[in-house]
Amino acid sequence: MTDTIISSHKKEVVIGFERPFVVIGERINPTGRKLLAAEMAAGDFSRVVEDVQAQLAAGAHMLDVNAGIPLADEPAILAKTIQLVQSLTDVPLCIDSSIIAALEAGLAVYQGKPLVNSVTGEDESLERVLPLVKKYGAAVVAISNDETGISHDPNVRFGIAKKIVERAADHGIPACDVVVDPLVMPIGAVGNAGRQVFELCYRLQRELKVNTTCGASNVSFGLPNRNGINSAFMSMAIASGLTSAITNPLHEEIMAAIMGADVMMGHDPDCMRWIKKFREAPAVGADGSEARGRRQTRRRSTS
Amino acid sequence: MTDTIISSHKKEVVIGFERPFVVIGERINPTGRKLLAAEMAAGDFSRVVEDVQAQLAAGAHMLDVNAGIPLADEPAILAKTIQLVQSLTDVPLCIDSSIIAALEAGLAVYQGKPLVNSVTGEDESLERVLPLVKKYGAAVVAISNDETGISHDPNVRFGIAKKIVERAADHGIPACDVVVDPLVMPIGAVGNAGRQVFELCYRLQRELKVNTTCGASNVSFGLPNRNGINSAFMSMAIASGLTSAITNPLHEEIMAAIMGADVMMGHDPDCMRWIKKFREAPAVGADGSEARGRRQTRRRSTS
Repeated sequence: MTDTIISSHKKEVVIGFERPFVVIGERINPTGRKLLAAEMAAGDFSRVVEDVQAQLAAGAHMLDVNAGIPLADEPAILAKTIQLVQSLTDVPLCIDSSIIAALEAGLAVYQGKPLVNSVTGEDESLERVLPLVKKYGAAVVAISNDETGISHDPNVRFGIAKKIVERAADHGIPACDVVVDPLVMPIGAVGNAGRQVFELCYRLQRELKVNTTCGASNVSFGLPNRNGINSAFMSMAIASGLTSAITNPLHEEIMAAIMGADVMMGHDPDCMRWIKKFREAPAVGADGSEARGRRQTRRRSTS
Repeated sequence: MTDTIISSHKKEVVIGFERPFVVIGERINPTGRKLLAAEMAAGDFSRVVEDVQAQLAAGAHMLDVNAGIPLADEPAILAKTIQLVQSLTDVPLCIDSSIIAALEAGLAVYQGKPLVNSVTGEDESLERVLPLVKKYGAAVVAISNDETGISHDPNVRFGIAKKIVERAADHGIPACDVVVDPLVMPIGAVGNAGRQVFELCYRLQRELKVNTTCGASNVSFGLPNRNGINSAFMSMAIASGLTSAITNPLHEEIMAAIMGADVMMGHDPDCMRWIKKFREAPAVGADGSEARGRRQTRRRSTS
């Protein structure tokens, strides 16, 4: 049993082997969203406000916040965005940047214990990110690549994850505050990308005894019906041991796959959350006929 | 690597660890279908013909045939149904009965190598079913319960499966012709039913090295949005090692979960089957927006 506690000033979220799966909303991120990038750079955060509200309504338990805008003052914008998001909601945040100064600016204004996204197995990353994580008492996402890139051999990636956990311990950060990202490659390009991740999730939970997260949407890159692939991937990764993911909660199909996986893992006692979400539906008949009239778009408010 | 070969007079289907998942259509079964039972007892097989066509159009690779009608001449009806179905399609069949005389009547008329459904770990079942399976050169579904009932301890169920495989060997039936059913209980009643099955699928493939099947629809009994639960269960069981299932292929959501799981397991080379089925859909945009205009009900003909 490993519990990773993330908090805001008011609320805790626990990522753990025997806990409901934790959904970290990925939407507050200007990468690939030109309009959002331009607005954030110009000081217009109205779309961020909308992204907060929509993701919470869709059931996100945490929110990732990224302000990676080329040529902009990322530390200042990230700090401002975090303050804004914390004024809107009490769900804990993931502070997401590849720039150390931006991580530090975000950490300095954050109220609570955030998840820092991320450190890699590269020495420079380890030596610069881990002291910050320790200084601010945060938890950290550990990405299982290093100077040699992303290995296709799960043993190599497992080794890098182990190295990061050991280095974190050297800095006084316990293993429960390291959430490993096994790295999800697009299945259309890397045919064994799924099994790599499933094997890693299995071993990371049982051998290294750490929690896990991943950027899940990437797996379906380039394929049609991406939500269908993402849903199957998510259920399968949860069966293998994945305990959280950074993903888009606005996709109902993916959220249903996650809720169904929680039921199947025994993490939704008496199926109460499932029944609450879907109970207006008539049950499927004894002859296997489809339920009719179910509202497909119902969302519960968790904000 | 264990390959279980099932055939008709014209066509082989292989169930295996490194093969696409095998879907066995469950619909030709009068249990719980009063109208079908009455019609079959009266010699009207028009609904069976429809069930054959619809399940093949929906992508079933094999069909289960059951004629369990109270007070009817089950051996005669089962034999007649099998002959009818084999005249309509060349997909291999699963001969499904709890009555030995019905199994024998079905085996006597079947053309090819069928899957017999089923033998249990009960001594009487073993001593009566296995000689028939050997005599007709069939494969057999081995259900992991015995005189003591269905254990909630996966170790006990694994032990029963092992015993059946050993008894089959005594009768000259190789392990590759025994397809173990780990037994799926309703998750609404047995909270750890999912993890029991996932652990069993994992061990049955890796330790006992046998293929597996299950009656999958049962898992969601009594819950709303049964297809949602069944889809999550199916993907998760495939990730754990399940290699076939007796289920309802008319549920598109479940078939998509199975096809997505095949992609994720690397059993759909270059994602060709997935792309073929869903390629008319515009890919999800870089901003994560949903695909629009996808035809939800498209079915490919495999007959």
